[in-house]
This record gives sequence, structure tokens and C-alpha cells, in this order.
Amino acid sequence: MIVVMKHTATEQDIEATAKNIEALGLKAVKIQGTERTVIAAVGEERVAGISSLESCPGVDEVLPIVAPYKLASRELKPEPTTSITGSLVCGNGTVGVIAGPCSIESEEQLMSTARAVKKSGASAIRGGAFKPRTSPYSFQGMKEEGLKLLAQARQETGLAVVTEVVSPDDVELVAEYADVLQIGARNMQNYRLLEAVGKSTRTALLKRGPSATINEWLLAAEYILDGGNQNVILCERGIRTFESHTRFTLPLATVPYVQQKTHLPIIVDPSHGTGHTHLVPAMSRASIAAGADGIIVEVHPNPDKALSDGYQSLTFQQFEETMQSCRTIAEAMQRQLGTF
Amino acid sequence: MIVVMKHTATEQDIEATAKNIEALGLKAVKIQGTERTVIAAVGEERVAGISSLESCPGVDEVLPIVAPYKLASRELKPEPTTSITGSLVCGNGTVGVIAGPCSIESEEQLMSTARAVKKSGASAIRGGAFKPRTSPYSFQGMKEEGLKLLAQARQETGLAVVTEVVSPDDVELVAEYADVLQIGARNMQNYRLLEAVGKSTRTALLKRGPSATINEWLLAAEYILDGGNQNVILCERGIRTFESHTRFTLPLATVPYVQQKTHLPIIVDPSHGTGHTHLVPAMSRASIAAGADGIIVEVHPNPDKALSDGYQSLTFQQFEETMQSCRTIAEAMQRQLGTF
Amino acid sequence: MIVVMKHTATEQDIEATAKNIEALGLKAVKIQGTERTVIAAVGEERVAGISSLESCPGVDEVLPIVAPYKLASRELKPEPTTSITGSLVCGNGTVGVIAGPCSIESEEQLMSTARAVKKSGASAIRGGAFKPRTSPYSFQGMKEEGLKLLAQARQETGLAVVTEVVSPDDVELVAEYADVLQIGARNMQNYRLLEAVGKSTRTALLKRGPSATINEWLLAAEYILDGGNQNVILCERGIRTFESHTRFTLPLATVPYVQQKTHLPIIVDPSHGTGHTHLVPAMSRASIAAGADGIIVEVHPNPDKALSDGYQSLTFQQFEETMQSCRTIAEAMQRQLGTF
Amino acid sequence: MIVVMKHTATEQDIEATAKNIEALGLKAVKIQGTERTVIAAVGEERVAGISSLESCPGVDEVLPIVAPYKLASRELKPEPTTSITGSLVCGNGTVGVIAGPCSIESEEQLMSTARAVKKSGASAIRGGAFKPRTSPYSFQGMKEEGLKLLAQARQETGLAVVTEVVSPDDVELVAEYADVLQIGARNMQNYRLLEAVGKSTRTALLKRGPSATINEWLLAAEYILDGGNQNVILCERGIRTFESHTRFTLPLATVPYVQQKTHLPIIVDPSHGTGHTHLVPAMSRASIAAGADGIIVEVHPNPDKALSDGYQSLTFQQFEETMQSCRTIAEAMQRQLGTF
Repeated sequence: MIVVMKHTATEQDIEATAKNIEALGLKAVKIQGTERTVIAAVGEERVAGISSLESCPGVDEVLPIVAPYKLASRELKPEPTTSITGSLVCGNGTVGVIAGPCSIESEEQLMSTARAVKKSGASAIRGGAFKPRTSPYSFQGMKEEGLKLLAQARQETGLAVVTEVVSPDDVELVAEYADVLQIGARNMQNYRLLEAVGKSTRTALLKRGPSATINEWLLAAEYILDGGNQNVILCERGIRTFESHTRFTLPLATVPYVQQKTHLPIIVDPSHGTGHTHLVPAMSRASIAAGADGIIVEVHPNPDKALSDGYQSLTFQQFEETMQSCRTIAEAMQRQLGTF
Repeated sequence: MIVVMKHTATEQDIEATAKNIEALGLKAVKIQGTERTVIAAVGEERVAGISSLESCPGVDEVLPIVAPYKLASRELKPEPTTSITGSLVCGNGTVGVIAGPCSIESEEQLMSTARAVKKSGASAIRGGAFKPRTSPYSFQGMKEEGLKLLAQARQETGLAVVTEVVSPDDVELVAEYADVLQIGARNMQNYRLLEAVGKSTRTALLKRGPSATINEWLLAAEYILDGGNQNVILCERGIRTFESHTRFTLPLATVPYVQQKTHLPIIVDPSHGTGHTHLVPAMSRASIAAGADGIIVEVHPNPDKALSDGYQSLTFQQFEETMQSCRTIAEAMQRQLGTF
Repeated sequence: MIVVMKHTATEQDIEATAKNIEALGLKAVKIQGTERTVIAAVGEERVAGISSLESCPGVDEVLPIVAPYKLASRELKPEPTTSITGSLVCGNGTVGVIAGPCSIESEEQLMSTARAVKKSGASAIRGGAFKPRTSPYSFQGMKEEGLKLLAQARQETGLAVVTEVVSPDDVELVAEYADVLQIGARNMQNYRLLEAVGKSTRTALLKRGPSATINEWLLAAEYILDGGNQNVILCERGIRTFESHTRFTLPLATVPYVQQKTHLPIIVDPSHGTGHTHLVPAMSRASIAAGADGIIVEVHPNPDKALSDGYQSLTFQQFEETMQSCRTIAEAMQRQLGTF
Repeated sequence: MIVVMKHTATEQDIEATAKNIEALGLKAVKIQGTERTVIAAVGEERVAGISSLESCPGVDEVLPIVAPYKLASRELKPEPTTSITGSLVCGNGTVGVIAGPCSIESEEQLMSTARAVKKSGASAIRGGAFKPRTSPYSFQGMKEEGLKLLAQARQETGLAVVTEVVSPDDVELVAEYADVLQIGARNMQNYRLLEAVGKSTRTALLKRGPSATINEWLLAAEYILDGGNQNVILCERGIRTFESHTRFTLPLATVPYVQQKTHLPIIVDPSHGTGHTHLVPAMSRASIAAGADGIIVEVHPNPDKALSDGYQSLTFQQFEETMQSCRTIAEAMQRQLGTF
């Protein structure tokens, strides 16, 4: 960590700050610049109270040097991790494809979708049973009944099951039916939930919060890894910016950036990332060309009748066409799309 | 709701969309413009599936007209609500002042702070016992022991107690000790938690998420109101923007804007809203001049030794001076600061 | 345009607003909703004073329906425009590649770069002679001497020349040497410059401002088109968001979105869009997979010695490798990369 | 400047980087941390090519230590500068008030406004003669005729004249009539314009660009100061964020922050900063409570008939009431509002 002193800092301020640094167990190295003094604090930065050094008289700012996460870092594990959960493989040359409806609405809806996406080459079926909804007046999900339908879809198609868990109390129940526990963007910093998923043996799919920095996101992953669950997939799903023509802004540079910082696999959600059906095919292709280890796409038999997210769902036909073009891009990248 | 058709929409598309609108129980009124047709959908917009109309062939976009929340709205309750919780009053000419440390660290730290902020005129003591921390390696709070110290502080000073609750499972325990249950910015859309607080008899303090729109925030309040808890205080604590010289950007226009949309009182958090001690006094004054019903400020006996948030905490002396200048501004606004 | 009345608007407010609408030459159609009245204003919306309707008593908001631009719109010209400028073709199945240094620094630097990028398959050479620099203490460019070197590079390699123009007074001079006049992100709303380029016969390359909405950007293009210059290429170069691990956030969904709204070709700048050399190859590929009509990439013989933008420039070798992988992606999209 | 090496950097990378630093005339001090090496580069950082060090093999990032601007800094001039231009005083205990219409539309409109704002206590009249408009189809201003009306308003009322200049070619003409040359937000990085205003003897009013960082803004001021013009007023007018209920987000913490970094006075524009008439009074008060050296407010005799910006303009009556409440706040701050 580098502690930058103000240009008005006195010799006494500098000494006192150095002492405070050493009280935290770090070594203080003073460097006298032409306009200011900086103090390099050498040692383990990831300790409580570091940031409060900014309150020392004469301190201007504190610049961290090492990443705040450990277990998720490439420093700890230089080679990339491949996530394998039944039919769903993300990494090591395979681009996993998770597809299905936003909400499970009925047996007919889910089963027809599972068959269709399987036929087009998807690796896993997704569907929401417990739904976190912005409005209390929106459809809240079929709950356990929905989970049973997901298990039925796996039974018939062999597809791995991905579904969201919204509360630590539900982790056990959801884990009974699902292969992958999705933590939604709104719950990225719900630490009790992260801890509960950290104790599960199911794969975790951790979506990025819409205003989370990369460090905050990887620290959320760190909670899961720290709990003992080593199978974590990251998912970029768009951030909140001033742009309003898309529901979120999908920053694909996240993919190569994150791949340098962490060994965990990263997939992209072009459905939430754009919020418009007509943008999903192009952004699915672009995600793969950017090097993503997978995509997660909303598919619905009748988007204009969907109880949620119809505006960003693909029909079966649109999904089939998207998969065809994505397969060509994956091959150009010398990767394979899906697991079959 | 207004459904805007594409300029390429056919007569058939328009008819089919009108039918879909009527299937949702709304009346469709077509208006033929010079370049496009729009369809006004008259009736209750707050029903599932509305947004999926965007998937109908020929539809360009769907523009909602009424606010998505009801119970929180001024339409439902035109006069402002005053929140009264023991010594803490927010609204009706009184500017409530909540002050105290980010985390409770020890009896000595909390009790000395409670006495100091009481002396300077605060209405309530704040202090974190259950801490949601970005990093698993940061100090996680004193938990129930901290709650007991808060109760002791109330006992001695008469100040109402404000503290954060991070999980639905903790609501009962925290409510045993606290007067006001704070829902932090990261949990603004933790719906299970909102539901649990909605069933409590304690006042709720709902912080705005750093990327939440006003509608999303008021819908989160709606979850609490809908659960039966009518005592909800909103708290603006800064949003995430491209600005990096402050930890968050504090948009004070939220205050007069929200006061037009909702009857709920709104307070401001200049500590998290700026992230720097030296900006807190000016932004406390500005919040009051903008018409806020209260402020919540971090105060610590030794900010440079604090286990969390030292960089944005005021010393006792700084808090006393801030209160003096805030009192002058409150009087200029013909309001009173604190309750005494 | 839809004028939404407040729920408290009186019959008189509604009548007065309708009259104001008709005074602007539009027809007012009132629609009585369950909670509010809206007035559809039918006719040409693109007239002065429309937005001031929001000041009429009882008006809540004014929602425009048609795009504010005309000449740039797909409504006016449904088929896409292909931009052809010597060796540089953008559109109609060809992905144009513009490459070269941020600033022209010397004959040796520019000529070696021109030869290298030509060999790797670029369609045009870029290089800044007039530099808009954030700091007055930074290198400001070689000015006319730089333009002469660009012309020399074209002479030798046959590559079209792309360079920035920063002032209306320079348009004539720059147009003497350059084939494409680049308008930088900081000048996107420098209307005098847009007007001057609108009168030129050279192709215009219009970068998106870092906080410009799509409408503002297309209105800037409209200034050029309205001036008589029909050869305009749009360039997405990243927007300003809360993300700080990249210099800007590159929102590739702009590509398919803009292609639906306008007939103009759109290219992407992955160098400024990410600000880091190591992210440029992946984002170049992703841009092409998203359907971009071209890319513009910074290349320098010795990035670590560059007078500007070294941190985001590719070496000759990195550019060669990037072109190879981009070519594979372009072929997967059934397009051709470059013009040869 | 601190150069942070990657954890994978070799001894050779570190040596080579140190050499590159010394080639720029700086001294390289190596500090060996537990996970990484950092190199402090001691000396004048404000030289070309510094940032290209990020391209050296093994370098992770380059962290600047000193502010990139000099003449604008408090380091250079510790005491605040008071800007005095006839009746307009900003700083040293006086809160300047600039008021008037967005665009000058007619003699009657401007003269009646000048009289009204003078009567309510404004220090200066504003009005746009040369208008930078987002759309080529909007009202573009009365140009020189408008300037003449401004001079007439000064003649009659004694108010200083503030008006925008949009092109270097117009500086001389505008300076003939105006006392303060306003550089609009869209032109904040129009360097030719900054240079031209830097050579003028008129006061410069430099608005912050909607996505400009504080450093970029102060570097723009540096261009003017560097040109020889020492009378520069900064103006915060709102930034672009994800918030859409206001036209821009007005970050008032800018005021105390900037006052620590620069000696230049800073005023606030609550009209553009919110974009809604009904939010302007509260944000005017809040600006003054935050410590602003002035405000600039849009006032129009008939906002609902205005040719531009009616939605954010105050009527004479609203301005009078706003001034009354602002005066009370200014007095609570022990400052005086306006100059009379």
C-alpha cells in the first residue's frame, strides 16, 4: 500500500503516519518526492483498519497495491479452472450454453423449452422458481413446484439444471433439485447467502451486481471459495450506466480482463445485458469472440405472453439460429459450443 | 401505458397488439400519428406480463405512465408522513440527526460516542453490530454483544437506537434491542429481508442502493409497506457514477424529487455519500438546505484507529462544529435540528 | 409526442395544455386514463419549443415518440449505406481496418507503421497531426508536417489516410492531405466543426462522445448530413461509467442497435474503448462478431516509448496476430476483413 | 509517480523499467513488497510519455501522485481567488447570482427579465446569443443582435453580462459586448476555444463537461490560465449518470472538494443540474449551503412559451421567492447574496 501525504504535511505528520503503519504490522518506507512525501507500507495489506489511515493528519490518500481477494486470484492459482457440472462444461476450450425461460410458468412451457434448447445444442436448462422481483405486484415464481419441473426436465433431456436461490434458508431445498445455484445480481453482496452457498456442494453461478466493481465481485466470489465451495462460475450480466436504449450496458472487456485476474471461468448473459431480444444474437456471438467460457440466454415458447422478461427472450427458432451462428464463431476461436 | 409501434408495423401488427393489450384487461385506444401509430392502454398497468408486449411483432417500445408503486405514493396519501420513534423525529419541521460509529468496537467506544453525540444534539445513536463487509477478511461486527451495548447506550442517554439488519433470520433478535431497523444499500433488493422487516413493528430505515432508480427504491419501500409496516424512512446515501474523487456521488436533488413522489420522510447520509471526512460538514448543511427530513452521520472517538470507515468519520469536535452550522441552516429553513 | 398530465391536473390545465399543443401546429388527442389523462400530440415533433410544454401547469412529463434525427434515420433510407474512400471500405460485407499511431512523431515512426499495417492487411493508416490533449503540458502534435508525412505514407502504401481535425479553421488544410476527417469524441458536439465538415467533400469519421446518448450522437451526424456531406462513418469508442479497470467502457450492443436506427456504417475503436493493450485483440474480435463495419486500432513501433497512448497501442507483431484472429472471425461472419 | 510491477515481473523487467523511468529524467526508487515490487519515480511527473511506461514488460499500472494541473492548484496559490467583474463578485464572502433566459428571444423578453432579476438581487444577466444546440432543427440563437440586447440590458440595469462563446473565431466579437465569456459544457475540451479565451481580457466562466473528471476540468482551466487569463470561474452543472428522473445529476460535493484543490471560485448551475423548474429552488439553497461562490439560474417571463429550456426556467415570481430563501441561507453561512 502507498500512503500519499499532502504537500502541506509536516515532518511530525509523516512520522506519526509511519508509526500508525507499523502499528498495523507493516514496514513503512518513506520516499521524499519533489512535491510530496509518500510512504510505502510493505507487508500484508488485507487487514482491518488499513483504510482508516486516511484519517491521519497530513494523509491525502491511500493507494492499495495488491488485489483484495486471494483465493480467486491468478497469483494463488495461475492456471484457469474448468467448471464441470454434468452436461455443463465452462472452460478449457468448451463454451457452455445455459438456456431457458426467465420464470417457470407451467410444465408444458418448461418441458417444451428444455426439449427445444437441447435440440439446438444447449448444455443446461435454466428457469426461475424463486423469483426476486422489483415490484411486489409482479409474478413471484412457482417455488418448489417449479424446482420439481426442473428435475423432470433434467430427467428427460439430461441437461444440467441451473436455478436461482434468493435466501440462505432455501439453499438446502434448491440444492436438492438443482445442479447449479445461481446468485442473482441483486444478491451479489447478500453475504449470508454467499456463505450458505459456500457450504453447498453444488456449483455456484455468481452474477455481477449492476454497480459492482471487479474487485467487489471477486470479493463476493471469495466469500464462496472461503466457505469451501471451489466450483464458482462468474457471470457478467451488464452494468448500470447512463445509457437507456439498452436496459443495462454489457461491457465485454470484462471477459479478457477478469481472465487475467482470476482463474475462475466467466460466462456472459446477453439477455439481461441488453434487455432486448433483437440484440441478443449479436451479443451472444460477441461474447464468444471476446473469449467467454459460456453464455446464458433466455428462451421462451411465446415471449409476448411471458409472465416476465418476454422483451428479452428468444423464441425457439431465434435460439436455433443464434446457436448456429455462435457455433461458427466458437469454431473460429478453436473452441466447441455446448458439450455434445 | 403507451405502446409505440414501429414505423414499419403493419395494420395486422397493430390489431394483434391491441388484442394482446385487451387480453390483459386494458382498453386499447389507437392514435394514428404522422410517422407512427401509438396505442394507449387504459386501465391498471400494475399487472404481470405488461412488459412482454414489447415482444409483439411491430412494437417498438412500451412507455409506462403511472408510477409502479402505490402505497408509497403521494397519489394514495397526499400529506407527508412524519416518522416518530422515541427521540427520533423525521419530518413536520424537525430534522432528525442519527450519529455514531460505523461498527461497534467496544463498550468504551460506543458509550463515549453516545454521550458526545447526545451532547451535541443528535436524536439517535447508530452503530453496526451485524456488518455486511465487502471482503471476508474485514471486521464482521460484534453481533449480539454489540446490540446489548446499543441498548445500554439508549438506557443511559435516552437516544433511540438505529442498527442494521442483514438477514431475515436476524430481524427478531435485532428488533429486541433496536428502535430502527436499517436496511443497507447492498440489501435494498433483498426481498426476503424486506418482507421480514415489513412484518416487524420497528421503524424501517431503507437506504437507496448505489445503482437503484427512484422507482426501484420506492418499490423496495412498497414491499415493507405492503407487509404492514407503515413506518418507513428513506435514506439517500449516494450513487455509483464515473466520479472517483468521492466514494459515491451524492445527488441531493433526490430530496425534493422524492418528496413530490412519496409521502415518506427522506434523510441523507453524507458520510457514505462522500466517503471523506472533510466533505461531510458541507454536505450535511447542503442536505438540510435541500429540505431533508434528517441526516445520518458517522462519528468515532478516533477515526484513524477505527476498524471500519475511519476515512469518513467525524471526531467528536468535528461533529459538534457540524451540528452548530447545521442548526443555523435548519433555522434559516424554519426547521428545528434534533428533538431537544 | 405524448404529454402526460399530473394526477392532480384540473380540466382547465388539460384544456390549456391542449391549446398550447395546437399553437405549435400539432393536433391534440386527449385520452382519459384511470389515474391520469395523457394528450397525444399528432404531427411534426421536431419543432422549437416542444419541450417547454413541460412548464404548462398540470403537465408531468413530455415523452417524444419519433427519433429527433431524420437524414440519419432508417425511416428515410431503409438500406444500409456503404462508405468507400479509396482503399477503405466500411459496410456491405467488408470490415474496414484503420490502424496506426495515436500521434505522428517522426517520418521513421509513421512510415514503418504504415508498411507494417499494410502488410498485415489494414485498409487505412491513421495518425494524429493536430492533437486535442487533456493537459496543456502534453505533446500537441506535428501539425502540417504530420499531414505531409501521412500523404507520403499514402503515396508509398496506397492506404487511405485518416486524421483528426479539431477546429473549423483547419478543415480546409487537413482536407488537402487526408481522405477521412476524424471528429474526436471531445468535439462530437462542437457544432461549428460539424458544420465545417458538413461542407467538405471528404469522408467524416464521427466518434461518439463518452457521455453522449445515441440520439445526441446521431443528431451530431445529422449536422454533417444536413450540411451536404453524405459520407459519414460512426465510431463507438467507449463511454464513461463507474468502471475504472478500463479507461472507458466499450458497449458493443451499440453496433446492432445503431444499425437498426441508422443507415450509416459503424466501426469500433477497441484501443480507446479499453485503454489497455492486452484487451485490444479480444475486443477487436468481439466488435467484428457484433457486426461492426470496421475497427480502428492504435499501432506503434515501440509503445513503451510513445509520446501518447502507448498503454493502449499494439506492436507490429501484436497487430499481425490480432489481424489473423480477426480475419477468422470475419470469415465466420461471411465478411471480408480489409480490402485486399 | 508509483509504477506497480506485476507479481510475475522478472528482475530484468524491473531493471528495464527503472531505466525507462530514468530516461524520462526521474529518479527510480525500488521497493520490494511481500507480493510485488513497486518503483517510486521521483521528480517532475508532468512530462510527455509518462503513461506509456504501462507498456513496459512486467508493469501492471502507473499511479500518478501529483495533480496534473499547476497554475490552478492550491499548491501554487494557497489563498482563494475572488473573481470580480463589475457587479458580479464570486468569492470572499459574496455569493454571485447570474440569472436570465437560456436564449435571448426578443428585446422585450430580455429587458423585462433583466429588470426583474435585478430587482430580486441578481448580480449579472445571462442570455444565449450563440447557441450550441443538440439538434440542427432547434433554435440557434439571435447571434450579434442578441449581444447588442445584452449590452443594452447592462446599460439600463448596471448588471454585468454573461454569455456563451462557441468558437475561437467569435471570441473577439463576443468580448466586445460581454463581461464574462461562458464556455459551455460541450466545449469544455474544445482546446482552440480555451486557448482563444486564454488570450482574452474578459472573465472566463468554465462549465464542467457532463462526463469530465475533476482533473480534466481543472486541466481545461489550466489551458486558459496558461494563456494568460487569470480570471476563471468554474461552474458545476451536473454530470451524466444512470439517473433519468433528473436531466443530469448535480454532485454538490464538488464544491468543497474543488475548493480544496484549486484557488479558483466555483459556482453551481441548478437549472441544467436538475433540468426541472420545481427542483431549482431547493438546489439553489443547497448549493449555497455547500459553500458555492455563486449560482447561475435560468429565468424566463413565460417558461411554457420559451424557445429553449422552458422546462427548467423559473418565472419572475419563482425567482424572487428563490432569492429570498437563498438570502436566508447565505446569511446563515455569514455570506452575502449578490452585490447590492
